[in-house]
Amino acid sequence: MPEVKFSVDQSRKFAEQDVLGHNRWHPDVPPAVTVRPGEEFRVECREWFDGTIHNDDSANDVRDADLSIVHQLSGPIAVDGAEPGDLLIVDVLELGPVPQEKGPVAGQGWGYTGVFARENGGGFLTDHFPDAYKAIWDFHGQVATSRHLPGVSFTGIAHPGLIGTAPSHDLLARWNRREGDLIATNPSAVPPLALPPLAQSALMGSLTGADAERAASEGARTAPPRENGGNQDIKNLSRGSRVFFPVFVSGGNLSMGDLHFSQGDGEITFCGAIEMGGFLDLHVDVIKGGMETFGIEAPIFMPGRVNPQYTEFITFAGLSVTESGEQHYLDSTLAYRRACLHAIDYLTKFGYTREQAYLILGAAPIEGRFSGVVDIPNACATLYIPTAIFDFDVRPSAGTPQRVDRGQCAVSS
Amino acid sequence: MPEVKFSVDQSRKFAEQDVLGHNRWHPDVPPAVTVRPGEEFRVECREWFDGTIHNDDSANDVRDADLSIVHQLSGPIAVDGAEPGDLLIVDVLELGPVPQEKGPVAGQGWGYTGVFARENGGGFLTDHFPDAYKAIWDFHGQVATSRHLPGVSFTGIAHPGLIGTAPSHDLLARWNRREGDLIATNPSAVPPLALPPLAQSALMGSLTGADAERAASEGARTAPPRENGGNQDIKNLSRGSRVFFPVFVSGGNLSMGDLHFSQGDGEITFCGAIEMGGFLDLHVDVIKGGMETFGIEAPIFMPGRVNPQYTEFITFAGLSVTESGEQHYLDSTLAYRRACLHAIDYLTKFGYTREQAYLILGAAPIEGRFSGVVDIPNACATLYIPTAIFDFDVRPSAGTPQRVDRGQCAVSS
Amino acid sequence: MPEVKFSVDQSRKFAEQDVLGHNRWHPDVPPAVTVRPGEEFRVECREWFDGTIHNDDSANDVRDADLSIVHQLSGPIAVDGAEPGDLLIVDVLELGPVPQEKGPVAGQGWGYTGVFARENGGGFLTDHFPDAYKAIWDFHGQVATSRHLPGVSFTGIAHPGLIGTAPSHDLLARWNRREGDLIATNPSAVPPLALPPLAQSALMGSLTGADAERAASEGARTAPPRENGGNQDIKNLSRGSRVFFPVFVSGGNLSMGDLHFSQGDGEITFCGAIEMGGFLDLHVDVIKGGMETFGIEAPIFMPGRVNPQYTEFITFAGLSVTESGEQHYLDSTLAYRRACLHAIDYLTKFGYTREQAYLILGAAPIEGRFSGVVDIPNACATLYIPTAIFDFDVRPSAGTPQRVDRGQCAVSS
Amino acid sequence: MPEVKFSVDQSRKFAEQDVLGHNRWHPDVPPAVTVRPGEEFRVECREWFDGTIHNDDSANDVRDADLSIVHQLSGPIAVDGAEPGDLLIVDVLELGPVPQEKGPVAGQGWGYTGVFARENGGGFLTDHFPDAYKAIWDFHGQVATSRHLPGVSFTGIAHPGLIGTAPSHDLLARWNRREGDLIATNPSAVPPLALPPLAQSALMGSLTGADAERAASEGARTAPPRENGGNQDIKNLSRGSRVFFPVFVSGGNLSMGDLHFSQGDGEITFCGAIEMGGFLDLHVDVIKGGMETFGIEAPIFMPGRVNPQYTEFITFAGLSVTESGEQHYLDSTLAYRRACLHAIDYLTKFGYTREQAYLILGAAPIEGRFSGVVDIPNACATLYIPTAIFDFDVRPSAGTPQRVDRGQCAVSS
Repeated sequence: MPEVKFSVDQSRKFAEQDVLGHNRWHPDVPPAVTVRPGEEFRVECREWFDGTIHNDDSANDVRDADLSIVHQLSGPIAVDGAEPGDLLIVDVLELGPVPQEKGPVAGQGWGYTGVFARENGGGFLTDHFPDAYKAIWDFHGQVATSRHLPGVSFTGIAHPGLIGTAPSHDLLARWNRREGDLIATNPSAVPPLALPPLAQSALMGSLTGADAERAASEGARTAPPRENGGNQDIKNLSRGSRVFFPVFVSGGNLSMGDLHFSQGDGEITFCGAIEMGGFLDLHVDVIKGGMETFGIEAPIFMPGRVNPQYTEFITFAGLSVTESGEQHYLDSTLAYRRACLHAIDYLTKFGYTREQAYLILGAAPIEGRFSGVVDIPNACATLYIPTAIFDFDVRPSAGTPQRVDRGQCAVSS
Repeated sequence: MPEVKFSVDQSRKFAEQDVLGHNRWHPDVPPAVTVRPGEEFRVECREWFDGTIHNDDSANDVRDADLSIVHQLSGPIAVDGAEPGDLLIVDVLELGPVPQEKGPVAGQGWGYTGVFARENGGGFLTDHFPDAYKAIWDFHGQVATSRHLPGVSFTGIAHPGLIGTAPSHDLLARWNRREGDLIATNPSAVPPLALPPLAQSALMGSLTGADAERAASEGARTAPPRENGGNQDIKNLSRGSRVFFPVFVSGGNLSMGDLHFSQGDGEITFCGAIEMGGFLDLHVDVIKGGMETFGIEAPIFMPGRVNPQYTEFITFAGLSVTESGEQHYLDSTLAYRRACLHAIDYLTKFGYTREQAYLILGAAPIEGRFSGVVDIPNACATLYIPTAIFDFDVRPSAGTPQRVDRGQCAVSS
Repeated sequence: MPEVKFSVDQSRKFAEQDVLGHNRWHPDVPPAVTVRPGEEFRVECREWFDGTIHNDDSANDVRDADLSIVHQLSGPIAVDGAEPGDLLIVDVLELGPVPQEKGPVAGQGWGYTGVFARENGGGFLTDHFPDAYKAIWDFHGQVATSRHLPGVSFTGIAHPGLIGTAPSHDLLARWNRREGDLIATNPSAVPPLALPPLAQSALMGSLTGADAERAASEGARTAPPRENGGNQDIKNLSRGSRVFFPVFVSGGNLSMGDLHFSQGDGEITFCGAIEMGGFLDLHVDVIKGGMETFGIEAPIFMPGRVNPQYTEFITFAGLSVTESGEQHYLDSTLAYRRACLHAIDYLTKFGYTREQAYLILGAAPIEGRFSGVVDIPNACATLYIPTAIFDFDVRPSAGTPQRVDRGQCAVSS
Repeated sequence: MPEVKFSVDQSRKFAEQDVLGHNRWHPDVPPAVTVRPGEEFRVECREWFDGTIHNDDSANDVRDADLSIVHQLSGPIAVDGAEPGDLLIVDVLELGPVPQEKGPVAGQGWGYTGVFARENGGGFLTDHFPDAYKAIWDFHGQVATSRHLPGVSFTGIAHPGLIGTAPSHDLLARWNRREGDLIATNPSAVPPLALPPLAQSALMGSLTGADAERAASEGARTAPPRENGGNQDIKNLSRGSRVFFPVFVSGGNLSMGDLHFSQGDGEITFCGAIEMGGFLDLHVDVIKGGMETFGIEAPIFMPGRVNPQYTEFITFAGLSVTESGEQHYLDSTLAYRRACLHAIDYLTKFGYTREQAYLILGAAPIEGRFSGVVDIPNACATLYIPTAIFDFDVRPSAGTPQRVDRGQCAVSS
């Protein structure tokens, strides 16, 4: 086990740690620690909602979740000698939930998948699921099961939902401008089109006083992925992956969090995959001038070799036609949404509620692929569910689907 | 080898075959043949452009391709006893290029990937590639190489780009209505938003006279995938797949074509994957009343077990921000387009032209995945290129990329 | 499809073909055809028992099979410029059963797995199965099923059981000497320890008269694999494999046959895997002086990328202790035999007869691995059966195994 | 992380722990702890040589290793209610090296592969490698590299080399009898044919006094695998595996040790794979009467889903002919030995010493398969090396192998 370079006490709030992390992107957040190229080290992370989501059977905590506090990031970690224009090589050597015994914080032997209420962030299918839901997962090695989703069990594909380098001032300004422009097109949208800088609940690492206030008022929210990586929610960024990050500030200033025990492509439930606190073991190195040499403006990566293997899938295709029959033009987002809805319809035939099915798709190792994207006017998107995650036969056949009462997930009151 | 139930003479045009296929969807196209549930049989297919694309070094044929003639479909094949509301089980037992010796028609030992000119259909990246391009691929068993793309070699993932059941009159009317509504929003768009029914060049199987004329004037164009399956361009619908199609008319009336030797997710070049004529060996069966039993409105499928295996990939992520920096809201289509453009930029560092790189992404077994789709405002899409398809080291490293002159693909004059 | 360089008429005996192949290894068998380095071509093959095993429900044909006629080899194929000391590169581009319609010869839509009687060759478990047995398999694309083995269905891993270059006179003499020495230790063993040269039924290609008689009297039998490759029965030498053969005579003189639709590791039933006639599409090239450059005395190869994928297995371990409890010293052969017997015992709990279980292990894509080979005195060998080949749940559980009457394979009268 | 049920202090010898384990199999060794069916728990293990092999550049420690002390086992762990005739379900939820920081004991961030000298146990190739050798591996997440084997890097397939239930008195007597019989055939063999009970260095858990002396004098050595599982050295018994053990004594009394970070099939170097101390997280359950229900006399298992994936291999085949040309009869052990030797010859062409090559084969995720086992008189065995474990191109080609000085492993003085 490599040396811990960023430590988290899972019994204390993020704001009460000895070394503070941050929850906004800003170039002025000072490095919490500096490492050398070639170094291997451990970073501990707190789950993204700072312990406010509980291992219980009510989704009220998800309903009331305060989005201003996310994401709880560990870092920044500066790498000696990294300068703007370089590529930062980051190897995800290992990662996992909190390695100590079971406890009350997600990652301590359990995790959660939530669906935000429409009024509080929503999700990919918020028009169909306007309320808050939750499922609790128990970890058994790399396998997850849930008392809220009986009959399901799968090997997770763990990854950091969020990892990225710090933006430069210029890049940050660009982000704020373009996102502000989008918000301006419909400032009252519910859920909002984007999240503007927000000083409330902002944590800016070791920055204090007026510097902290100014940075908080400018700092980019951590929800979206951007050119620095960030909240990409790429499930395949799992054990053994090598990522090449652009460096925008001296030292690179790498930060990370939002660890997922598992996730389906899209993280469609938003809140989210299987969320957990835990740790990341990293190795870092630098390619001098790599951004120009390789023409790289945003992170690229190579997946590892130990992703869970499944070889039998049931696959649903979606088109860019809305539920009410309106034809859209080559809209893969819509096509994937329809594929998800088809899968949900299907799973209800086996006794799951629609909410349960939605949570399964958000958490299990689901593949979501772009199929046709040029066949005007219909995009085709496909969603692959491994059949082996169910303890019953989920395949269509001449017989009747094995429909039993499978209970319900946690709902809000 | 099972009995040939639909035969094609590759030396003759589609309209000159003994048994005519069709190139429009319409419930009135009579079955060309009827098979029994449980039967196995072979269907021969002509490449989608009816032999008008040549094994040469000019893209003029792609530039001048007549979209009114596509797709050349083999069928309809009626299945005894299949009735609306049933599910048609179709097993893709085997498929491949034309099994006879080399010849002048795509599928006879070779295939092509083309990029349409913007004025003639365009493609996923038509704003960046407004002209026509082409690459010719040679087949070596399941491996493809191209004189236009030196240094590339891969095992194809063969599949029918297009396979589907006939629509009912009601369903057809719904298609025409919704697509007409879309076209009406911008009738002069280039490329067009959708393709309306078009009698010119229509082939309606054995339908003749006024019946044929009426059907041709109503028949849905074959470009888009729809609820009947059709041109889904799902690369994973490969050998050993089992598809469950909704049945909308008596007999189901299955048709197919647009065979691909290989394709990257999205078929981003539009014209297309690696196009070929060839054959499909199928097994069919029926699940009575399966649409309601399993809640299925559009085809679902289970992929086979012999897809080409690659385990090392270089991955590009894209966001829903345009090339000019405009922020869009959770647009996975745009995000995938940006991922493709990043990959093209990268490959040019190794000596490929941008056109060559585009053609590689359209043809090779590229994975295109939905990553985050909820992290407002940015969707994240990822594109995975197997590193082993190159005969040089395509990974980023501290060294310099191995940049050599790799020539050029076929261009138009 | 590449040009056919060695053609077989499946309706005629091997000895009645226009171009004769051979069934003994001898350097004097003249090339039937010569190809150039870089060339791609097709070779047609007859099933190893020349059509004497029938698609019926009696194992009498297997009981009476005449081992003096095997193997029916297509070739030799000389490669221009290949000289002793070179390496011959052979790419297995594609292979499969007879591509014409169903017929009476194995490979024409069906194949067989047999168990030889002890008096006629025996098999890996001949002490337990002294009689002849047979199962007929039907081919559905790359999938096999058998009326003699209900409940089983799998994707085959097709390969040439036998492919090799011609030996030099020196090498042939060495083979005959060492095998003769072994036979001499127990000339009356049943089954025999090895098969000496045998003029009866010998076919020596185009060699005639006294030359043929002399060569037949010296020619090595084709049963064993040797330094030239030959009957290696390596199931992973499947589609897309690249083999590097030592060249011992001018031209290399490559011959092949004994095509298998599928095989379990070990081909434990001897007669054999799933046997079929069919075709091989090959590409050849030469590495001059490659034997010394790479230190190669026997073929090496690189498997292809389209082997059937299974991810769930039930695994049996065997030790080098005999069924009667006698301890042997690090004997992996015995350990694998015990693993096979354990698997057979297990499968009978689900209703298969022991003979049926034996045939399944010989034909299905079973993995047989060396596990510990140093832990004195017990070798450990492991046998992996994909659970998905059964249409019932074959895993141990708290419940009772689903034991039903599964009939019986073909037996001898 | 589950509760630790068997704890090891890595800074103290095995005999100095608070709770003693054992290094002989005997039914009278009392359980160190009892768990309930359904329980999940952690077991800590010490590396098999109790810390006497050092992270240095001399193989003297391997040369002088005292085989009487192995294996250091953690346990026995009794499972409530398990009775003879039951099956014990053991899920390997997770395992890994010592989770604390780097230190002087194997497993603390590093491991070793050794080759025993012929006089001290030998190995699979002891006739060719009569002396002691060693390589030290550094762990980087699941990846191993070695300063003694430059150019090699791979993802390990971690597993317990040894895990098993306690034998009954009857079974133990049977073991001692059959192994004694074997030893009696050549009592002075070097290395010995088997290891008889040996009181010297025996640890019998909490057993004391005369009971301990008697048990030590009867206890079976732990080197060989047997019907209780034990030292099977099955590399595929990795993360996520489910094992079904026969129960021979009340409680089952499960013990384990000999953790491997990685291993090639066969563990041909004997001392051994990549050896480490570490931990195992287990889940246990019981199938009442399962031995008879499922016909099980020795452990069976189902591998997990997260084994490292490689898709390109270079493969060597071996025959049952000795290095001096003597023909043996269907001897897969010999065939695998020859395959190993061919692979070693090959790797020396790229600059490795023969000792280095031997160590690579013992440690890397090498596949060793039974190919033909019936083709009299030659068995064929195959050994698959993933090409991606080398940082150079290890494939044969028309060019010259990239031969550079790769130093040497640790040797003995």
